[in-house]
Amino acid sequence: MGTLRETVHEMKLAAPALAAVSADDRNRALSAMAKALADNRERIFAANAEDMKAAESSGLKEALIKRLKFDDSKLMACTEGLKQLSELPDPIGHVTLERELDDGLVLKRVTTPIGVIGVIFEARPDALVQISGLCMKSGNCAILKGGKEAENTNGVLFEILRTAVSEVAAIPDNVMIRVSSHSEIDEILKLDGDVDLIIPRGSNAFVKHIMDNTAIPVMGHADGICHIYVDASADTEMAKSIAVDAKIQYPAACNAAETVLVNESIASSFLPELVSALHDANVKVRGDKKAAGYAGLDEVFEDPGEYRREYGELTLAVAVVSGVKEACEHINRYGSHHTDSIITADDKAAQYFFSMVDSAGVYRNCSTRFSDGFRYGFGAEVGISTGKLHARGPVGLEGLTSYKYILEGSGQCVKEYAEGTRSFNFRDRL
Amino acid sequence: MGTLRETVHEMKLAAPALAAVSADDRNRALSAMAKALADNRERIFAANAEDMKAAESSGLKEALIKRLKFDDSKLMACTEGLKQLSELPDPIGHVTLERELDDGLVLKRVTTPIGVIGVIFEARPDALVQISGLCMKSGNCAILKGGKEAENTNGVLFEILRTAVSEVAAIPDNVMIRVSSHSEIDEILKLDGDVDLIIPRGSNAFVKHIMDNTAIPVMGHADGICHIYVDASADTEMAKSIAVDAKIQYPAACNAAETVLVNESIASSFLPELVSALHDANVKVRGDKKAAGYAGLDEVFEDPGEYRREYGELTLAVAVVSGVKEACEHINRYGSHHTDSIITADDKAAQYFFSMVDSAGVYRNCSTRFSDGFRYGFGAEVGISTGKLHARGPVGLEGLTSYKYILEGSGQCVKEYAEGTRSFNFRDRL
Repeated sequence: MGTLRETVHEMKLAAPALAAVSADDRNRALSAMAKALADNRERIFAANAEDMKAAESSGLKEALIKRLKFDDSKLMACTEGLKQLSELPDPIGHVTLERELDDGLVLKRVTTPIGVIGVIFEARPDALVQISGLCMKSGNCAILKGGKEAENTNGVLFEILRTAVSEVAAIPDNVMIRVSSHSEIDEILKLDGDVDLIIPRGSNAFVKHIMDNTAIPVMGHADGICHIYVDASADTEMAKSIAVDAKIQYPAACNAAETVLVNESIASSFLPELVSALHDANVKVRGDKKAAGYAGLDEVFEDPGEYRREYGELTLAVAVVSGVKEACEHINRYGSHHTDSIITADDKAAQYFFSMVDSAGVYRNCSTRFSDGFRYGFGAEVGISTGKLHARGPVGLEGLTSYKYILEGSGQCVKEYAEGTRSFNFRDRL
Repeated sequence: MGTLRETVHEMKLAAPALAAVSADDRNRALSAMAKALADNRERIFAANAEDMKAAESSGLKEALIKRLKFDDSKLMACTEGLKQLSELPDPIGHVTLERELDDGLVLKRVTTPIGVIGVIFEARPDALVQISGLCMKSGNCAILKGGKEAENTNGVLFEILRTAVSEVAAIPDNVMIRVSSHSEIDEILKLDGDVDLIIPRGSNAFVKHIMDNTAIPVMGHADGICHIYVDASADTEMAKSIAVDAKIQYPAACNAAETVLVNESIASSFLPELVSALHDANVKVRGDKKAAGYAGLDEVFEDPGEYRREYGELTLAVAVVSGVKEACEHINRYGSHHTDSIITADDKAAQYFFSMVDSAGVYRNCSTRFSDGFRYGFGAEVGISTGKLHARGPVGLEGLTSYKYILEGSGQCVKEYAEGTRSFNFRDRL
């Protein structure tokens, strides 16, 4: 095996070979992965039972234990997900630009895998399967590090997947490895010549720690401070049900709403209704003095910086704004550029909101919880990016690709073009 | 004005307003910029004369003085470039995905500007004009920092451009600023909440220094170690002229060749010819012992790590490889993933090279010097990216855009989909 550094370096050298594997062979590997998981059901469940036992005796939180559990329904979701991936169009080898620069000098831009991707994920064993599948479909080598609570399950899942992949002769060796200790992550963060991208999933502090400690590009989202803005012309019943859904349907998710902004002109009637609907759903409601002037809140704060909080639980902030302009300003100032929704019947207000809110997702008349790779039809996601470079929003197969420029000539040198004896004659062919 | 931090923060808040400016108004600003430059010809030349005088008395290198000079031909190139930019299609507002997720729930992905971009460039005053133009066309706010040698010229150019832009009423204030000291760069590197992207142009050490000192994403290329591989079936006359062009046409450019690899089967006849052609062009030729066995070299080295050198001058390394496979391995190992060219009549060898060489540009039968935004028909470039994320290769308007997801619904909540009472029904409309 050699050291981790050597193993990753071999992976880097194998990456172009994986990039050259045909879509059929990559799809064959995905099918083999799905079949192997189903065939090894009992072995996976036994390993998961060990992790569950350890988690329960160490007093792990209920929500985490739920994520850790790998049962028949999760197994089914995993095999189904791999099958869906195998049926999606190939994300690599697409010609996205084809231009004749001059006679006999043709430029093409072709999508390629990124290369070697390190993904650090939380204690959900199904994440290991999803990420392995996304990387295989997109022709990327994967370094996988899962949460330590799922150590046994991940170990078994990884061995099953790796063995399945090795049955497809065209796939090079060494295209997926698993690491399990924190010291190994620290080592990987130093391999900026060999690792092309790190995708950390986890707490804000964890993502920031990764970013501060590596020269490798990092794709991740820090916060999920999402807003619902209820405009003057909103259907208030719709606004209430969307606000409740966006808060309670899965409060720990990054696309859950943290703040509802209400247009001043409807605040005196709507805000008390909203607070009452939230209370019925066991949501604690906070806000500044201005908001408290319209409805009874559970907590009133003075510092507007409180609007920058991500609750991740059944707590929500409310604020009253003068209109869509102030709503956009509030969102750009206190939000995290993730996903924000306007509830309105007014097309002009919606257009203004779409253009002025600087977020990965700008929605109208629906819940912020739709911001998710599966719900966007991407098959699955490796994460949600709040950065604006490379990939923004849910990151599926397309976000795992790069491209290269292929230029085919017939002996052309730059000299003649620089001296003006020949000139370019751009003709797009796509 | 306030402090730099405040100015940049205001710029960040103005960024969505610039993003919302129509293409017509942005093109109007570009035309105003071109006209203002032509109208202020004498003022620009006077400022440049001061910079030239200071440069000459301080003993600046000939090559740098040539770059610093801003004369009629450079002015013409600048105004022509701005005019071309104004005629290019709008890079923002493109719908690149349109998908009905379910009845009445429609997802669109629309291209947007990135936001606030800081560009640090060398002592070419025309770079200030090009970058300002690219940022205006793509709706991005620009923080510009040019080389100190061009201080007077840049100051005058910037004032002219800013005044011209301010004549277009629709463009918000504060969308371009110029900074001139190193301490201001250090301050900007700390503004990771307000600056979306830094593009440094300059030496490897400088780019690395920027990357090590900011949490803002950095897009830049480090090295330019480009290769020519002369395959067994190459037209040797073509190979010689391309190798000479790629080395001597502009040796300081990052897309100039540093190493020529020669197939063993033709090395005994071709390598002496090549060395002779390079000598005729005043190029010093180095290589390892194996290469020296085929032709008289000016210098022989033992350490293969010498193949990782970027000369930037009339020096070139040669090596002998067993075939296209070893050529690709050499390039991936010692190159910088910039641009590499195979000279061959063999389609299979070319396909292998295109797929296995992990570089932004993979060429066949032409010079590596074509790797350039203007030559690709991008109008201009802000730089060349050897990273694989976001933009790879020459970065023009498209590389200065991001996107957002717009989702329009009619009251949809996630609850029903999560509970299975409704399901997605993805239908692509593009």
